[in-house]
Amino acid sequence: MIKVSVMYPNKPDARFDHTYYRDKHMPLVKSRMGEACKSYTVDRGLAGGAPDQPATYMAMCHIYCDSVEAFQAGFGPHAKEIMADIPKYTDLTPVIQISEVVVGQR
Amino acid sequence: MIKVSVMYPNKPDARFDHTYYRDKHMPLVKSRMGEACKSYTVDRGLAGGAPDQPATYMAMCHIYCDSVEAFQAGFGPHAKEIMADIPKYTDLTPVIQISEVVVGQR
Repeated sequence: MIKVSVMYPNKPDARFDHTYYRDKHMPLVKSRMGEACKSYTVDRGLAGGAPDQPATYMAMCHIYCDSVEAFQAGFGPHAKEIMADIPKYTDLTPVIQISEVVVGQR
Repeated sequence: MIKVSVMYPNKPDARFDHTYYRDKHMPLVKSRMGEACKSYTVDRGLAGGAPDQPATYMAMCHIYCDSVEAFQAGFGPHAKEIMADIPKYTDLTPVIQISEVVVGQR
């Protein structure tokens, strides 16, 4: 299992509509990817690790897929439509990472 | 529900023992935190979002707790012991973030 993490850097004055992201954007991603997206999670950054330190990321999502190939097959054909939806909730450019899920939930 | 994300930046020549992290360090964290740690996940960075781009983080873990206070109460008394274990698997300093879990798994 792999996860694709999409992480939105926390910049002063950046725009991020968490409600749209949760209620519209991520359901759009899931509906277009279908079974290729096994599940997903959504986070909202609260704080950094030290007192009064801001969160590094304003928001994150993690999309779980069987493999990198499964992600590409599910996301690729809809990339244009999904990317076009991003300006509706943010003006940030996300950092994207693909990880192997070493421990899924314990 | 909140999650504490511990993210190890992917630096050239950095040391990271993924086996020790999975088999020793994270079980130590869970055993010391007890019920305060509802669950955790572990990731190993594979790649970035663009072709031939490296992963931003070499490894990540996400620790799920009922609240920031529950995390602090569970982690605080064992922080010294847990921190002292870090050099056994890495020479990296992690980026830490606390997030609200907006969507837990869908």
